[in-house]
Amino acid sequence: IGPGRADLLEGIAETGSIGAAGKRMAMSYKRAWSLVQDLNAGWGAPLVETSRGGSSQGGATLTPDAQAVLAAYRAMQAATRTAIDDNVQALATLREAARQN
Amino acid sequence: IGPGRADLLEGIAETGSIGAAGKRMAMSYKRAWSLVQDLNAGWGAPLVETSRGGSSQGGATLTPDAQAVLAAYRAMQAATRTAIDDNVQALATLREAARQN
Repeated sequence: IGPGRADLLEGIAETGSIGAAGKRMAMSYKRAWSLVQDLNAGWGAPLVETSRGGSSQGGATLTPDAQAVLAAYRAMQAATRTAIDDNVQALATLREAARQN
Repeated sequence: IGPGRADLLEGIAETGSIGAAGKRMAMSYKRAWSLVQDLNAGWGAPLVETSRGGSSQGGATLTPDAQAVLAAYRAMQAATRTAIDDNVQALATLREAARQN
């Protein structure tokens, strides 16, 4: 996945709705639904499950796989940030010095 | 920078030539030169220095800043790989299981 899809999954978990999750990201329902279809197809098993409830667009929940994928993605983001932090700081310092010369 | 620009800098260090470094990446001299200009401008100080030598396109060398940037970039790539390795493996295993159900 990527940052946008991770945010969409997170939004679905938090709102219980594909449309509401998309809306938070200024995304049309059609676009959000299409991304969910891509996610499900790409994984090879459902990541988002929808139910046809009383409301017009039904509800949506993350499968256990999706919860694991999202958790792993967030963990990788955090680990990456930590891993590169020293080099990012060193480069920023070096760049600042270069710009002042 | 990014993977392409890092490879270009590395190529310049190894070949001593913007054109030769670009050629290794199937890039036109014009494109390679343009990327070098972008790199220099983006950094705020030269990353690649050219000399008008006897050959038609002269030679090119990395400045100490560029060597530091390239080393930091490669270090970040390696650190990132290490940092996410466990999660990547876990996701691959989970995905394989999902696909077999």
